[in-house]
This record gives sequence, structure tokens and C-alpha cells, in this order.
Amino acid sequence: MHGGAPFKIALFADLHFGEDTWTAWGPRQDLNSARVMSSVLDQEQPDFVIYLGDVITANNVVVKNASLYWDKALSPTRNRGIPWSTIFGNHDDAPFEWPIEWFSQSGIPQIHCPDTNSPFPGCEECGFRGTTRLELMKNEIERNSLSYSKKGPKNLWPSVSNYVLKLSSSDDSQKAMIFMYFFDSGGGSYPKVISDSQVKWFQRKSKEVNPHARMPEIIFWHIPSEAYKTVAPKFETTSKHYCVGSIFSEDVAAQEGEMGIMKVLEERPSVKAVFVGHNHGLDWCCPYTKKLLWLCFARHSGYGGYGNWDRGARIIEINERPFSLKSWITMEDGHLHSEVLLSS
Amino acid sequence: MHGGAPFKIALFADLHFGEDTWTAWGPRQDLNSARVMSSVLDQEQPDFVIYLGDVITANNVVVKNASLYWDKALSPTRNRGIPWSTIFGNHDDAPFEWPIEWFSQSGIPQIHCPDTNSPFPGCEECGFRGTTRLELMKNEIERNSLSYSKKGPKNLWPSVSNYVLKLSSSDDSQKAMIFMYFFDSGGGSYPKVISDSQVKWFQRKSKEVNPHARMPEIIFWHIPSEAYKTVAPKFETTSKHYCVGSIFSEDVAAQEGEMGIMKVLEERPSVKAVFVGHNHGLDWCCPYTKKLLWLCFARHSGYGGYGNWDRGARIIEINERPFSLKSWITMEDGHLHSEVLLSS
Repeated sequence: MHGGAPFKIALFADLHFGEDTWTAWGPRQDLNSARVMSSVLDQEQPDFVIYLGDVITANNVVVKNASLYWDKALSPTRNRGIPWSTIFGNHDDAPFEWPIEWFSQSGIPQIHCPDTNSPFPGCEECGFRGTTRLELMKNEIERNSLSYSKKGPKNLWPSVSNYVLKLSSSDDSQKAMIFMYFFDSGGGSYPKVISDSQVKWFQRKSKEVNPHARMPEIIFWHIPSEAYKTVAPKFETTSKHYCVGSIFSEDVAAQEGEMGIMKVLEERPSVKAVFVGHNHGLDWCCPYTKKLLWLCFARHSGYGGYGNWDRGARIIEINERPFSLKSWITMEDGHLHSEVLLSS
Repeated sequence: MHGGAPFKIALFADLHFGEDTWTAWGPRQDLNSARVMSSVLDQEQPDFVIYLGDVITANNVVVKNASLYWDKALSPTRNRGIPWSTIFGNHDDAPFEWPIEWFSQSGIPQIHCPDTNSPFPGCEECGFRGTTRLELMKNEIERNSLSYSKKGPKNLWPSVSNYVLKLSSSDDSQKAMIFMYFFDSGGGSYPKVISDSQVKWFQRKSKEVNPHARMPEIIFWHIPSEAYKTVAPKFETTSKHYCVGSIFSEDVAAQEGEMGIMKVLEERPSVKAVFVGHNHGLDWCCPYTKKLLWLCFARHSGYGGYGNWDRGARIIEINERPFSLKSWITMEDGHLHSEVLLSS
């Protein structure tokens, strides 16, 4: 990727495509979510889009190949020729959850195919098993030249979306302006966790591509780590006035374990910020410890998933010279708020 | 099947084969469970065996084809040339549950194949996804001439093990001595429930094969229905002295919903008893309502699964003339107890 300055990124978090497709409500939510993305993309004209997990709600997906919905979620970005990358959330490969009502007199409802000219097989039949992370990623990468997603090293399996993207300097495409690290924070078919192997992978990789930690690094995954709890403005021990955001409506729903990633990130001065989704009722950025590492939530972008907070997207703007990392939230209706400087 | 009198059936419940195969503990439990079955079979010499669900613990099964463990559980019966049938429990197709420790420094342990001369493919690789009910049943039926299991009508899917077996009179193989109904009570990949469609299937089927309810009928499924709670001896409102059993150590862990099966069974005078597993800490039979319908637990037969109550098996003995239905529990060490007459 080549980054002129400023380089703008839009984060789409928790779109939850493919819910309740046996009702009229479900497909309508997908149209609404697509409208949110279109609106943000047209207003902000970002250079890059990051799908921050829970792209689909696999526990609702009856068709054999959930890539059908995954692909729908990508289409507003693809239609505008904007490159993107994706990571997995806990809903993306969750096993199908049968509603108990389907076992009563009403029975299993008739399942309608989402569209007839789908590029994916398995629309005609129901799978009720979800689609694996590897399949979802394979289907995305193979069919989309605009996708910068990667499957990640095999030894990190069952976590899949682990990779690094280099944003190049505008002067010299060999030189990096910033590195973006993507992690699979689990959930769905396996625990919500960033593993020790992923930590080691980050240490190895960052040493290799940015040996002296000269260039800045930003981090993306889906489920907040425990560290988010310690800075959450709800708690008395932290100072809310350092945090920037507009919704503080939930407790942080953190990962199930902490295998060391936060310690490594904290100790690496080049790491400027971590961006997560998962909590639809939180959209804040708070500083973590003394060092200037920011912990940020994205903004619930989808009409799928729980919560009725207004939809929007977090925007990240990177300036090369002088280096700055700025972020704000753009709402579906065009309103901007919660601007914060993540570098200084 | 042809039933001379008396006809003896052994129920093996909750064997839970295939647990923790990456440790020495797991495979040892399977050997212990096989020893329980061998001991009971050699002592009781039953004419038929019923595997009452939770034959395997699929949420622990890493190999691609869980039939490998399913098959191991069948082998003591098959080796003695005794015919059998199986039904599904909530653990048989449960999705794999990753231990969170596997994401720490210790990593994913090396997985060993259970045996090298396995008849099933997929031993070499790990699947971590479980095996569907349909696959498990298909693999059992195709490879075993002694198996009387059936896949059941397709319209009852996702519940699979729904079928009826006729035990013939010793005089006339056309004439029935008793009908045995098998139900899939769900759990694992879908809710723990007997559906309205299964109820209708029973009504249709029983009317077809035993139109005037002249011949007795007995019922088998895995998870106790809510009705078991109402007769459970723990509760003051019921009279424990009508119940027969030796362990009353748990609350009844019932199905998630009641779609009508109990009402239908209760109203049909030919239905003598229901047999379930699931609760390892319960082995009683109690009468249900005024009518002589008995609700019985089997006895935990496996070393897999929770609980350390001594292992055993419920035996059912059917006499044709005069008709009688008797049951008792035979322990691993040969001790018999809890004899109860389920007909009168």
C-alpha cells in the first residue's frame, strides 16, 4: 500500500450480516448496514477500510456457505474501488443456534435464499454448521483483488486473521510510514483469546520489519483485552477526563484470558493504539498506563447485533510529516464527534 | 427381532468415549468403560443392548471422524455377537471445546491417534469440529450387521435417532410381543428437546403398527423430560416410597422444552415405561401420574463424563406369557439391586 498524506482509514465494526434470514426483519438490517457503510464511505472517502470482526452472525446463518453474507458486507467498499482488510470476531464462525420455537408446532420456517445470482455454492441447501474461518478467508481473498486480508501463519491456527500491512511513505515506497497489525482475538469456534503463539509471532515479526521500533505501529483486533477494563471510564480509579468518546453504556466484555500481548505492546514505544469492536455500547479511546498507548473502541456500524445506539464508524487519519495519528467518529447521518489525537 | 421369553436387554448409558485423548487419563477411561460393558454382558448375557446416548464426548474429540470412538464403544457388544441399537445424547455431536490452556505457553498438545488400524479415515488429521449425527449413524449402520439403529425419517431432522423396533412373539414372528420406541432428545448441535414433529411421528407410527394399543410399548431417549422433575424423590410433594433406585444425588437435568410427548405417552395405556440417561447421579424408577407409566433412569455405565458413582447398567427383562416387564441394575462388580416390576 502506498500512503500519501493524510491517509484515511474507516473502521466498520460489528456489522452482523445474515441475521434471521427467515424473517423480513433480518434482510432489512443488512440493507440498513450497507446504507451506513455507503454513507460513511461517500462522506469520508477513505483510502482504506478495515472490517473489525463480527462481519456476519454465523450463529444465525442457515445456508451452507456463510461467505454469501460476508461478501455482501464487503460490497459497499468493493463497489467504490476502495481496498480493505478483515479480521474475525467471535460471531464469524460461531456454530448455528437453533431457535427452540422451531421444534414446536410452528416447525422450521421456510428458508429463502438471500439472492439467486450469488457467486457462492451452497445457497440452495441449508448447512446449519457455519463456515470455518479458513473457508471464509479463502473465499474472500480468492475473489477480491482489493482485499489485503491474509490467512496468517499456519502455526497460529485456530486463529486465522493474523498479519501485518505496511503503509508506505509517499516519498519512498520501500520505506514504511506506519505498520498495521491485525490479530484474530478468537471466539466462536474456540476461546476468546490472543494466544502465546500470537504474542511470539508479533515479537518476531515486529523485530523483523521494524527492528528499531522507529516507525509507528497500530493494532487491530475484535475483542477488548482485560486491559480495557482497567481504563474504562466507568471505574472510579481512572480519570474519565482523559478518555474521549460518546457512549459509555456497558461494561467491557473482555477476552477470556491474557497470554501476554498487552505486556509486549505496552513495552514497545512504537505501538500507538489498539482498536477493537465487540462492545456495541462503547466508542471511547482511553490512554493506557503512563506510556502513550491508546486503547480505542470502534463504533457499532451494523444494524445486526444487539443495541440501538446510532450507527457510525471510527475514522483514523495518518499524517506522515510531521507524523500524527488522529481519530474521530463519523455517524450515519454525517455528524462527526469524539475527535482525539493519538500521537503527540 | 425374535423374542423368546424372557428377553433381556442391557442399557449402556453415558459411556462418554474419546475424552482427553491427549492425556494418559482419557484413553484409560475408555478401557475402563469397555471393562464395565464386558463384565455386565458376560454376567447377564442379554439378548439385546441399547446404547442410551452420550456414547462419546464429541466436545473432546479432536480427530476428524468421531466414529472412531463411537465404534470402540460398540465393540464389547459386537465382539459377543449381540445385536444392539443406539440413540443420541447431547454430547455425541457437540462441537469441540478448546481448552484455554492450549493458548498459553504450553501450546496445543501433540495429538496421538487412538489406534493405527482404525477402520475410519481422518485419524491422522485433527478436525476439531465433531461429526454430525447423520455421519455417526451412517458409519455405524453401514459397517455393522448387528446394528438395529436407524436414521429415522428425514422430516424429523435435525433429530436423527427416531425409530421403532418390534420384538416378535416366540410363537409367531409376525406378531409383536412389545414395541420399543427410540427418540433423539437433542442437545449438542441443537436444543435439548423432543419436537412437535417427533410427537406427531410417534402418534402416526404407533397408530400404524399397534392400532388398538394392544401390545405394550417402551420408550427410550437420552435427556429426561420435565415430567421427571415432578416425580423426582427429592421433592416433598412426591412419595419416595413408590420410587425404586439407589442414587438420588442430583437434580433432574431436564430438556429445554416440552412439546407434547409426555401428554401423548401418558394418554396411551400401552406405554409402560420411559428410560433415559443423562443424569449420572440418578438411577431411579418412579411412577408417573395415576396411570401405570414408569419414568426410569438408566445407570451411568461409563468412566467418561462427570461423577464417580460406581458404574453399572440397567437391565430390562420382558416375559411374554404372562406378560411382565421387570428391571434391575447390575453393577460392574456383579452386584444386583433396585429390582422393580414395571408391569402389573
